[in-house]
Amino acid sequence: MARTIGSHGPTTMEAIRKAGLRLIFQHGYEAMSLRQLAAEVGIQPGSLYNHISTKQELLAELIQDHINDLLRELELALRDRQGPVERLRAFVAFHVSYHMTRKREVFIANSELRSLDPRNYEAVVALRGSYERRLADILSDGVAQGVFDVDDVQVATFAIIALLTGLCSWYRPGGRLTKDAIIAAHEKLVLSGVMPRNAEAAQAGGDRAAPHSG
Amino acid sequence: MARTIGSHGPTTMEAIRKAGLRLIFQHGYEAMSLRQLAAEVGIQPGSLYNHISTKQELLAELIQDHINDLLRELELALRDRQGPVERLRAFVAFHVSYHMTRKREVFIANSELRSLDPRNYEAVVALRGSYERRLADILSDGVAQGVFDVDDVQVATFAIIALLTGLCSWYRPGGRLTKDAIIAAHEKLVLSGVMPRNAEAAQAGGDRAAPHSG
Repeated sequence: MARTIGSHGPTTMEAIRKAGLRLIFQHGYEAMSLRQLAAEVGIQPGSLYNHISTKQELLAELIQDHINDLLRELELALRDRQGPVERLRAFVAFHVSYHMTRKREVFIANSELRSLDPRNYEAVVALRGSYERRLADILSDGVAQGVFDVDDVQVATFAIIALLTGLCSWYRPGGRLTKDAIIAAHEKLVLSGVMPRNAEAAQAGGDRAAPHSG
Repeated sequence: MARTIGSHGPTTMEAIRKAGLRLIFQHGYEAMSLRQLAAEVGIQPGSLYNHISTKQELLAELIQDHINDLLRELELALRDRQGPVERLRAFVAFHVSYHMTRKREVFIANSELRSLDPRNYEAVVALRGSYERRLADILSDGVAQGVFDVDDVQVATFAIIALLTGLCSWYRPGGRLTKDAIIAAHEKLVLSGVMPRNAEAAQAGGDRAAPHSG
C-alpha cells in the first residue's frame, strides 16, 4: 500500500499520521516499527525525523488531536441547545455521528492508553476528563432540575459514553439501518435511561410530578 | 516477575495462560514474543511447546475460554428467572459483576479480534453471537409482551453490552461505590432505557398498582 510522495511539508505529516493510525489499529503501537511506518508512507526511515521526533510523540499526538477535535466539535453541537433534555439529545446525536467516522482513532485512544508515557498519559486523561465533564454537567443540571433521575452521575457518564462509543465495534456504512435511525435508537435508550418514569408528568408540572428514587 | 515452576502438567499451562493474559494486555498480541512468554512463566522457550503449539492457538484459547465461561455462568444466572424484566435485571447484574473480575480477558477479547486468523475469528464471532443472542432474546420477548419498548433489538443489544462492559475501563475494587451500588446504577439505566414510559400502567394492566422496576 506504500505510496511514494514528497518527504516535506504538511502533506507528508498527514500521510505519516494516516499510516500511523492504520498500522497501530492493525498491529498495536508496540508492534509498529518506525521502519514499517516509513515504508507505509513511502519515505526513507531517516526522513521520518523531519516530521516526528519519536514514535511516542506520534501516538500522543494522534490521541490528543482526536480528543481535541471531539471537544471542539462538541462545543459547536451544543451551541444554542438549551435545557438538559435538549443538550443530552444533542450530545448523543453528536457523539454517535462523530464516532461513525472515527473508528481507528477511537480504538487507539481506548486501547493504547497503556502505551503512553506517564506525562502523555496524564495529559490524555485530563483531556478525556474534560469531555466526560461536558456530559456529567448536562446530567447534573438535569438532576437538579428534576428532569433526570440517575443513581450516580459519574457512573451514568461513563456508562453513556461506553454505550455510544460501542457502535464503533459494529457500525458499517451502508448497513441495514440509516444513520438517522441509529442516532434515534441511541437517543431513545439514553434519554429513557436517565429520565424519571413519570417524566412526561414532571415536565408538564402535573400532579404525579415528584421523581421517584427507584 | 518470572517465577520458576515445574514445566509439566496443568499448573504450567495455567501459568502460561496467566502470563499470556498479562503480556497481551500490556503489550498487545503482536508485540508479545514466545521467548518473552517463556521468560515470564520461568521456563525455557522450547518447553512452551509441551503446552501450546502456537501463539495464535494461545490467543484463540484465551478468548474462546473467556466467552465460554461467560456463556456458562450466564446460564446459571438466568436459571429460574422468569419474565423479560427479571431476566434483563439478572443479565445486567451478572454481566456487571462478572466483568468486574475479568478486565484483562475482556480487553483482549475486544482489542485482539484483529489478530485472530480467519478460522479462529469466525469461531469467536459465532461464540460472541451466542452471548449477544441471549440478551436479544430477552429484549425481543419483552417487546412481544409489551413490557419493553425499543426501536431496534439488535442496536439495543449491542448498546447495552457496550454500556455494561464499559465499567472495565474505570472500575477499581475498593473505589467510592460498593459493588451493589454499581450494579444498581447499571440496572436502573438499562431497565429504564428499554421500558416504555408508561411501564407501570402496561405491567399492571391498570392504573398504578404494579411495582415499578426503574
